[in-house]
Amino acid sequence: MTLQRSWVASAQAANTDFPLHNLPFGVFRDWEGDDAPRVGVAIGDRVLDVSALKASLFDGVAKRAADACAESTLNALMSLGSEYATALRARLIELLDASHADIETNKKAVQPALIAMKDAEMLLPAQIGDYTDFYASIHHATNVGLMFRPDTPLLPNYKHIPVGYHGRASSIVVSGTAIKRPQGQSKSDDAEAPSFGPTKMLDYELEMGAFIGGGNSLGEPIAIKDARTHLFGLCLVNDWSARDIQRWEYQPLGPFLAKNFGTTISPWVVTMDALEPFRARAFARAQGDPAPFPHLYDETDQTSGALDVIVEAWLESAKMRDDGFEAVRLSRGNMKNLYWTLAQMVVHHTSNGCNFKPGDLIATGTISGEEKESRGCLIERTWRGAEPLTLPTDETRTFLQDGDTVILKAYCERDGLRIGFGECRGTVSA
Amino acid sequence: MTLQRSWVASAQAANTDFPLHNLPFGVFRDWEGDDAPRVGVAIGDRVLDVSALKASLFDGVAKRAADACAESTLNALMSLGSEYATALRARLIELLDASHADIETNKKAVQPALIAMKDAEMLLPAQIGDYTDFYASIHHATNVGLMFRPDTPLLPNYKHIPVGYHGRASSIVVSGTAIKRPQGQSKSDDAEAPSFGPTKMLDYELEMGAFIGGGNSLGEPIAIKDARTHLFGLCLVNDWSARDIQRWEYQPLGPFLAKNFGTTISPWVVTMDALEPFRARAFARAQGDPAPFPHLYDETDQTSGALDVIVEAWLESAKMRDDGFEAVRLSRGNMKNLYWTLAQMVVHHTSNGCNFKPGDLIATGTISGEEKESRGCLIERTWRGAEPLTLPTDETRTFLQDGDTVILKAYCERDGLRIGFGECRGTVSA
Repeated sequence: MTLQRSWVASAQAANTDFPLHNLPFGVFRDWEGDDAPRVGVAIGDRVLDVSALKASLFDGVAKRAADACAESTLNALMSLGSEYATALRARLIELLDASHADIETNKKAVQPALIAMKDAEMLLPAQIGDYTDFYASIHHATNVGLMFRPDTPLLPNYKHIPVGYHGRASSIVVSGTAIKRPQGQSKSDDAEAPSFGPTKMLDYELEMGAFIGGGNSLGEPIAIKDARTHLFGLCLVNDWSARDIQRWEYQPLGPFLAKNFGTTISPWVVTMDALEPFRARAFARAQGDPAPFPHLYDETDQTSGALDVIVEAWLESAKMRDDGFEAVRLSRGNMKNLYWTLAQMVVHHTSNGCNFKPGDLIATGTISGEEKESRGCLIERTWRGAEPLTLPTDETRTFLQDGDTVILKAYCERDGLRIGFGECRGTVSA
Repeated sequence: MTLQRSWVASAQAANTDFPLHNLPFGVFRDWEGDDAPRVGVAIGDRVLDVSALKASLFDGVAKRAADACAESTLNALMSLGSEYATALRARLIELLDASHADIETNKKAVQPALIAMKDAEMLLPAQIGDYTDFYASIHHATNVGLMFRPDTPLLPNYKHIPVGYHGRASSIVVSGTAIKRPQGQSKSDDAEAPSFGPTKMLDYELEMGAFIGGGNSLGEPIAIKDARTHLFGLCLVNDWSARDIQRWEYQPLGPFLAKNFGTTISPWVVTMDALEPFRARAFARAQGDPAPFPHLYDETDQTSGALDVIVEAWLESAKMRDDGFEAVRLSRGNMKNLYWTLAQMVVHHTSNGCNFKPGDLIATGTISGEEKESRGCLIERTWRGAEPLTLPTDETRTFLQDGDTVILKAYCERDGLRIGFGECRGTVSA
């Protein structure tokens, strides 16, 4: 693979999340200039304001995609179908490429449309019609199952169905939004009756989310060979969870108030094109595991339908901030360890005819691996509080305290190529 | 109560769903004239095209509400808050009232804006951001629980929490839309492995839905004394369900593909103002039942927070149509028998800070009563197929067959006053 570089200096840094090969899409506004939300692309420490570029820089499919960047959400671009964003991104790579023959002309045309990231406010990238959360990590499902249902940790359907449920779209917020500790009902094992009050078991969940680009009509399932073309790109998702509320409410209809008080997503949507070099073999089913049903099986999906994305959760307490400590990493896992691929989730979701619309979000569920250090939420990481974590300030944590900031990060690294997702950050307030 | 009548003759019929006292809102387009979707009001067998009325007929709050009727969904009207629709409806009652002093002037102004219902195509009344389905009938929960979990039919949380879950908004369709029999995974008790194919246990669920008018901000729960003002109005909901898929998939995260292939709603939204005369005492908790938590309890809500709405499910098979039989009634129940009031559902839903947006829909869950004839779905009505129903054609039904049309109806009747909800209709296709 040829490693092109951008003439934007900050995009050449070894540790940048946003080199020339990434170019994720997001929605921003800059307070200094025009404050209308519009679509931008991240490059180094800059936001490229696509709608500020001259129309003459684009033609054909790329031009129509660039026009959609004047909108206040990515939905218009998403709804055009995957080839539009692909063409736009390819053209933007040319315009930002340090080795391009027209570099001087390109610089002159593009530089005025570059805004410092620190001057841009990032907004929710899309109007999310429906949000679905899956449960695709078998390690997470087994661990949580052990705690909630010791007799049957992994239910009989798990290896046949990419288990998922509908989440709440209205309470999805962008990175940086404060999360208010929710109140709710819970009942401890030794209590006679439930009680109502602020959750005592506030947790995060480290997940990846996939935005749907082109949708499907009601009644028309998506075939697995086509599933990939319906995915626009990925972001980080923190599915904040109140474990005490969840335990009391979740039977028989699933999690509800334990989850819908807030879900945080990262603002930059990394396209499937940018992720292409990081495709990986699907999770190896254990000897004796059932084969997926034919509609959920595709050879290409098995050999390269997973994604090698390293995911991390970091914590910074209020005291750590006061005492000058940096955030500490609580876990590091990998998306390629999911039992189900994104394509399988898409196919299962639509197998009954359910329709996706552009801008819908599906999330993977907590990404945990086999090792303790790869467990993507506190209830697993501290084994329901039995093994507290110690912070640099000598504070301990079983669940989140007010003032705690959770920072999720993700990146891909292979053959000298690295792209990242930026941050998904939220601070717990009382 | 004075029973005013409308000068629209069809609105005077004893059995009309849409007399002067109803005036539900909906979204329609007429193929003969302007085909842009807009807000209308049902009166007798006519749709009143509010946006076709002269602006000078309205002033103040009512005028702003009338302006919102030019939109293609009710969301704009809903988001204004309850007093706006209240004022508009009050003014429309004046304009349509046969005993009004200005009747001749009013007739002249209104008549050109009346369209025959048969010439109007009804559309989804709102853009539904999020859809939540509750489980508020204790009779339904007990019956289904007996079939799915004979050991613990009613779970310990039921009398403390208005149990609910998030449904799918994208697949909500308006009355009249065909429902394609979904495929899915299921596993019978005696099978070694699950199988994939068309559901063999397709069911309807007879529910009422409530549209949210004004929303709340994330993190700000709605108090029970304010809950009513957040409700815009009610419609019928058919929560089509595939019982075999549901049984296999629903643990541990709740129903998903068993429900999200389609949900049908009736097009006319009957306002809370129209329902005011039909308020009823909340369901009487049995001796020994726990008292609701303080945030879920309000004296006014207990004495008049339920609604006396008679709900019916009707069936017409393809053969019945061919042989000239009318639809037969399968059940008749009453919304006042729900264990939880709509206000309690709103309060519980937002008690953790979850936010509602205008146009969000909450549904009650299947409305079943104590008697067999009041059970609002086939799995209860036929006790999971053990007691088939016989149709006038001598066909029998345990679950729905292709070609079956399910028609839900609802109405209120008290002291000579009757209002109805129209129909919620759907035909099963292969």
